[in-house]
Amino acid sequence: MLLAEIITIGDELLIGQTVDTNSAWMAKALNLSGIKLHQVTTVADEKEHIVEAMQNSARRSKIVLITGGLGPTKDDITKATLCEYFETHLEMNSTVLQGIEEFFKQFDRPMLESNRNQAMLPAACEVLINTRGTASGMWFEKDGIIFVSMPGVPYEMKGLMTDEVLPRLKKRFEAPAIFHKTILTQGIGESFLAEIIRNWEDKIRANGLKLAYLPSPGLVKLRISAYGKDESTLRDEVLSAAEELKCIISEYVFGEDEDTMESIVGDLLKLKNKTLSLAESCTGGNISKIITSIPGSSAFYFGCAVTYSNASKVDVLGAQSESLNKFGAVSKAIVEEMALGAKLKFHSDYALATSGVAGPGGGTMEKPVGLVWIALAGPNGVVSEKYNFGNSRERNIQRASAMALDMLRKELLK
Amino acid sequence: MLLAEIITIGDELLIGQTVDTNSAWMAKALNLSGIKLHQVTTVADEKEHIVEAMQNSARRSKIVLITGGLGPTKDDITKATLCEYFETHLEMNSTVLQGIEEFFKQFDRPMLESNRNQAMLPAACEVLINTRGTASGMWFEKDGIIFVSMPGVPYEMKGLMTDEVLPRLKKRFEAPAIFHKTILTQGIGESFLAEIIRNWEDKIRANGLKLAYLPSPGLVKLRISAYGKDESTLRDEVLSAAEELKCIISEYVFGEDEDTMESIVGDLLKLKNKTLSLAESCTGGNISKIITSIPGSSAFYFGCAVTYSNASKVDVLGAQSESLNKFGAVSKAIVEEMALGAKLKFHSDYALATSGVAGPGGGTMEKPVGLVWIALAGPNGVVSEKYNFGNSRERNIQRASAMALDMLRKELLK
Repeated sequence: MLLAEIITIGDELLIGQTVDTNSAWMAKALNLSGIKLHQVTTVADEKEHIVEAMQNSARRSKIVLITGGLGPTKDDITKATLCEYFETHLEMNSTVLQGIEEFFKQFDRPMLESNRNQAMLPAACEVLINTRGTASGMWFEKDGIIFVSMPGVPYEMKGLMTDEVLPRLKKRFEAPAIFHKTILTQGIGESFLAEIIRNWEDKIRANGLKLAYLPSPGLVKLRISAYGKDESTLRDEVLSAAEELKCIISEYVFGEDEDTMESIVGDLLKLKNKTLSLAESCTGGNISKIITSIPGSSAFYFGCAVTYSNASKVDVLGAQSESLNKFGAVSKAIVEEMALGAKLKFHSDYALATSGVAGPGGGTMEKPVGLVWIALAGPNGVVSEKYNFGNSRERNIQRASAMALDMLRKELLK
Repeated sequence: MLLAEIITIGDELLIGQTVDTNSAWMAKALNLSGIKLHQVTTVADEKEHIVEAMQNSARRSKIVLITGGLGPTKDDITKATLCEYFETHLEMNSTVLQGIEEFFKQFDRPMLESNRNQAMLPAACEVLINTRGTASGMWFEKDGIIFVSMPGVPYEMKGLMTDEVLPRLKKRFEAPAIFHKTILTQGIGESFLAEIIRNWEDKIRANGLKLAYLPSPGLVKLRISAYGKDESTLRDEVLSAAEELKCIISEYVFGEDEDTMESIVGDLLKLKNKTLSLAESCTGGNISKIITSIPGSSAFYFGCAVTYSNASKVDVLGAQSESLNKFGAVSKAIVEEMALGAKLKFHSDYALATSGVAGPGGGTMEKPVGLVWIALAGPNGVVSEKYNFGNSRERNIQRASAMALDMLRKELLK
């Protein structure tokens, strides 16, 4: 199997000021191209450390993708290291220089000496043009191993990977077959899933398939994989195993592969020609943010009232002051009035509402941190459910958001 | 300098289904304890691969922190690998078993055989009790190198690090001094900052300090670091360099270290005893989500109307139909009416509003994707500004959110 490694360079990663999101994106992209990511190594902006990582990666894998350590203010070490490793020197690349000049002209900004220096590139590399920034990609080959250096800015790295690196890798290597199918479940923990599907799992493992459990707050993904053989056999084996799995756990399955809870809900709303609005209290706008992360969501989504203060629940959504006084903001009465109020104000077919104690403060014996009421108003009135999502503010918000969307999904499937 | 490494185990990381956020958190925590993170290595759930990574890390660093590869469904490989590496065997730990039984009792769930197996732990390790889950931490020592294995679930790993691992490491090693100061800037690009502060940067580098540029959408962080020597000298050197820096770029500085734009704005609102509401269109609830991520934000934040549909801008916020017809939703008139409407509806002192074309669809020649109007209503009326944030939907939302909060910050500082 064709192996690749990623080396990410950057002191900022090693002191934790930046989360490495690049590697996951690149891993996915490599995977889809039939290339297996063998290892990710994160090293400091130091010559010896970078060289050591390059040597080790080259011993294990055919492809070494390097991100970071470029950019106008930190070019020096990485490019000097590459020159030493590949026994070459820097020279001015006039095509790149012209591109950088145009880049600055386009945004009407003066160009600095440090930007000009970004066109100084190792003579031995094939330059990969970066259309999204001023740091070029560099493609090297040594003893049959491909090394590619790219800037660490995610937007620029993604452009270079998509436009240059992946097409070249596919051309260069005949990638072996690989096939994945991921089944998304909601409302059941990892151990219980494992128990329910044990016989099926034993069987597919005996047939050479792999299974991975990928839990995250509020959901568990099950990924079935097969490697080697010819592509259509892999595909048949994986898809048939996936169909069996879906039968066994049908009540928990909400989607597949790149589906998200919000994309599923959005597709169902569009399919049924229905519209949605929201009334959020403890989730603070998170559900709205999730829904509007879908391009084109304005087709089915009208808006949201984040009523964080008690007064706004009354003034903006028309909740009853008496309910507030009698039951408090975190109550069945209020969350249902919020949902009904949003449905009315935004003129939507459905409205979801949340009200809870996100924490860390604000909890009482009767209404502890983690208590969340979720309501759904629709053509047939309003229903609500009470949950307890535990102690972490961030997880409360995430889990309440996922659960609210799942409530709507189930209603739309009825 | 005391070096540590992280080994993260998990096929899910290598196919990109999970972003490794643990390493950044651990890096920060180590750093604050005066331990330098030297490398992060991500490997597959495979015995040989894990062993190779452990051997290599042990050659370079005194401390090797291992996350992942535990949990009821994937215990086997990692624990077997640890037993082989440390030449030991699994045995039932009755304290841990009791803890697991209580954990399941507390959440009123039946316990499975796979959960019981989690109490089978290597005889040679010191067990670190995990109060947040059922996978224990394991502390090993071999040839003077400390190895700690922890579950990969972030919430559980953080608990073990805070309660067990860091206190033990501090006791075990006398960590050398280290001091960082980070200055946060907004509204200026990396290259321009570098140009402005060049002389200062040369000077501090000559004095043995380090400087890192950490750009992210809408802001650039500048981190000044010093290592070695005694702590108070490091502190003095770094803080005095930071003060000089703040003078040079005062107009762009908005905060320090762990400050965020939202925490700064929240603190200013609290300090001045003022309140905020929002009216979001193109940002879709993202600003509300950011504000409510601050625990205790209900003290100054009343709520938000996400008016995604045109009708809701009129019905919920009281924008004028004539303005909509004449100027369209993405216009100075509408964004100002939205801000004034939110201020009125939510009875807040200030209101921010956004209206723009987030993309990818919906752009025209006159109003291209990336065009965003931001308005701020306050005690002295309403002001607005027009921006263009480019082609990426996600970046548009992020940059518009940061810019809106910065507009309020500047107003509050007046």
